[in-house]
Amino acid sequence: MANKPTPDLGRATAEMLARIRQRKPLLHHITNFVVMNDTANVTLHVGALPVMAHAREEVAEMVAAAGALVLNPGTLTPEWVEAMLIAGRRANELGIPVVLDPVGAGATTLRTQANQRLLRELKIAVLRGNSGEVGALAGMGGVVKGVESVVDVADPIMVTKTFARQQSIVVAITGKQDVISDGERVVLVDNGDPWLKTITGTGCMATTMIAAFCAVEQDHLLAASGGLIAFGLAAELAAAVGQVAKPASDTAAIESRPTGLPAFGPASFKTALFDAIYNLTAEQIIAGAKARWL
Amino acid sequence: MANKPTPDLGRATAEMLARIRQRKPLLHHITNFVVMNDTANVTLHVGALPVMAHAREEVAEMVAAAGALVLNPGTLTPEWVEAMLIAGRRANELGIPVVLDPVGAGATTLRTQANQRLLRELKIAVLRGNSGEVGALAGMGGVVKGVESVVDVADPIMVTKTFARQQSIVVAITGKQDVISDGERVVLVDNGDPWLKTITGTGCMATTMIAAFCAVEQDHLLAASGGLIAFGLAAELAAAVGQVAKPASDTAAIESRPTGLPAFGPASFKTALFDAIYNLTAEQIIAGAKARWL
Amino acid sequence: MANKPTPDLGRATAEMLARIRQRKPLLHHITNFVVMNDTANVTLHVGALPVMAHAREEVAEMVAAAGALVLNPGTLTPEWVEAMLIAGRRANELGIPVVLDPVGAGATTLRTQANQRLLRELKIAVLRGNSGEVGALAGMGGVVKGVESVVDVADPIMVTKTFARQQSIVVAITGKQDVISDGERVVLVDNGDPWLKTITGTGCMATTMIAAFCAVEQDHLLAASGGLIAFGLAAELAAAVGQVAKPASDTAAIESRPTGLPAFGPASFKTALFDAIYNLTAEQIIAGAKARWL
Repeated sequence: MANKPTPDLGRATAEMLARIRQRKPLLHHITNFVVMNDTANVTLHVGALPVMAHAREEVAEMVAAAGALVLNPGTLTPEWVEAMLIAGRRANELGIPVVLDPVGAGATTLRTQANQRLLRELKIAVLRGNSGEVGALAGMGGVVKGVESVVDVADPIMVTKTFARQQSIVVAITGKQDVISDGERVVLVDNGDPWLKTITGTGCMATTMIAAFCAVEQDHLLAASGGLIAFGLAAELAAAVGQVAKPASDTAAIESRPTGLPAFGPASFKTALFDAIYNLTAEQIIAGAKARWL
Repeated sequence: MANKPTPDLGRATAEMLARIRQRKPLLHHITNFVVMNDTANVTLHVGALPVMAHAREEVAEMVAAAGALVLNPGTLTPEWVEAMLIAGRRANELGIPVVLDPVGAGATTLRTQANQRLLRELKIAVLRGNSGEVGALAGMGGVVKGVESVVDVADPIMVTKTFARQQSIVVAITGKQDVISDGERVVLVDNGDPWLKTITGTGCMATTMIAAFCAVEQDHLLAASGGLIAFGLAAELAAAVGQVAKPASDTAAIESRPTGLPAFGPASFKTALFDAIYNLTAEQIIAGAKARWL
Repeated sequence: MANKPTPDLGRATAEMLARIRQRKPLLHHITNFVVMNDTANVTLHVGALPVMAHAREEVAEMVAAAGALVLNPGTLTPEWVEAMLIAGRRANELGIPVVLDPVGAGATTLRTQANQRLLRELKIAVLRGNSGEVGALAGMGGVVKGVESVVDVADPIMVTKTFARQQSIVVAITGKQDVISDGERVVLVDNGDPWLKTITGTGCMATTMIAAFCAVEQDHLLAASGGLIAFGLAAELAAAVGQVAKPASDTAAIESRPTGLPAFGPASFKTALFDAIYNLTAEQIIAGAKARWL
């Protein structure tokens, strides 16, 4: 256990991205209606192939061709959770990594229990959520309102590491700083940009990035870290397109912006983000990764 | 009744927008598949928090955390209408405003009857539709083809005011000129731009804007007017980005456009619209509101 | 039969597009969740009106107002296939053209059988798919992974023409070169751009374009060709916005791109593509069509 590898994270991320672009793994998503188009595009932009399929009659057959399975119950019903279980069991049999995004866990009983069931009945490779969602599933604090973490867990490193060890999975809490752990090793990622909070689905996009990396890398801690480094770096490059200050976090700052024609904003950022994921180079990653082993 | 307030509409809109950005209310949407991503983004850009949730098992719990509930049966099935009724009843119990967008009412019996049922069984705060949709529900003329008003009601002010009084709700008919009434007062809004008709979901986006304003303002006539002023003004600012003539409304004009590289168009307008909603300032609203009490 | 018309394809496409913009036909889509927003927008941009409706209780009534019906089982369940059959039968009774996009046929038994059933029980006007999807339905080779053709049929002209004659429909295989046939005449279209493969849903968008043309032209071979010429030409105009080399098809080329700020990419291309569809002129089509009768 103590000998698990801790390679240079920038270089490892660049190498994994090259493998994605070369192998073009299929990412089977059973995901929410809000982000289906966005996550299919992110899948293509990072170099993989997307398919969205949720019929109980076909998910076991579809997942067999996949490099990874994304389960994202963001607009769940009990029927969709059943489809997730069918696909997840087959993925487990075949050794295909399953990435879970517990959207809104903690906000309602249905969401908390559905995600607990997915965690209990399936072998999950990586769980990625915001602080409140992971806190709710771990029973370690945090408050979720809708799909937003409105109160974060007190100690994200402790929660991530403890819950990862308990569940024998990789856990990633994403936020201003991303914390990723397999219960033993811990990675901290500081790539990212405040503009990410101005558009919907960025958590789901990050999960898709993680799944792409898991499809080409068996060390899922490394894969999850690589997905988040690449995604956060793309966000930084996209924000640079705006050549403007970070988005204001309070009303006063918003009100003090200069008037005039609209310039850069969330939708321009989203376009630049998707373009940046596609155009990301090994050199950019090696130079720009802000990640370290704890 | 005669003493209901009629404040300056530009100033009131700026004040309500500041409250949205400060309080960040949750807007629970049960809406159609076409616009889920767009309306989630509009919710964030105006300063609120979105959640899309439609499972009958969770909607009553989810809506309890919301500042407003949006019901939009644009891709309805009977199951979704049941979920809307469950969420709406709970919202009514808790005094949370319910905003109804009767997409395609008048186009099919299912759509007309489902919206009539929502109006009858729930206490609706604001009903926003196009001329044909509201005319169909009011039984006062108009023709809907798909989700488009192809024949408008003859007298929108009369229809809006009469139907609002009959139903004891706020009614908004949106179009070239928006007409909003609580059955007593009437507001006319001339903000907007013809480019809005070139992209899908702008009616649904306007409804989301109204819901955000209803979440911070108990005078729902003022809130609905504010949402439409802000949305229409953002459209004007977005169209200005194009620095081009208004989109042509007839074939001859389209054919006479200069050839060459594609420049501004509907997708560029949509990006600019979303950016403009996010960047909208109090100064822009006070200077640009084109609204008046009748 | 031998006297079927073979008009100039550029000029015919320009004339059909003018009719779409003048008549604004309603395109009733029963389609997948991933592309609903995109295909609704493409419908508007080309000059038609979109409606997305899938409830079994309303599809027969809705389709009666439509100029064409699009069936796209890309995120199918058995219930959605039933709705497609109800709508399709009513469209057949009324002589409204039905365009089928067999997304993922060949990838799972459910998808293959559902599309075979739609082909068998309905009178389809145009079937448009990628090489692997059409090959799977025709039983003539090709391999589909997810929704992608990873092995194309050996002889697309033979497959297209043979399957069209067997089924008495128009068949279109789209790819680097589009092949369209009614079993007798064959059209080859070389408009298009490699950027199309970097975003999701371009096949579905092409199908929507074909449906718009079928709504105004009874010669469905001509209509399908016109839709693909217009779509491919818009893609070329959009790629020209980038003023950059074609997207790389292999890892080496991606890695060798210059570093620096993100510039043109898939999301910028998508914006330019939608703008180009809207701005397309008769002159551009007549000058830019790369299509011929075989």
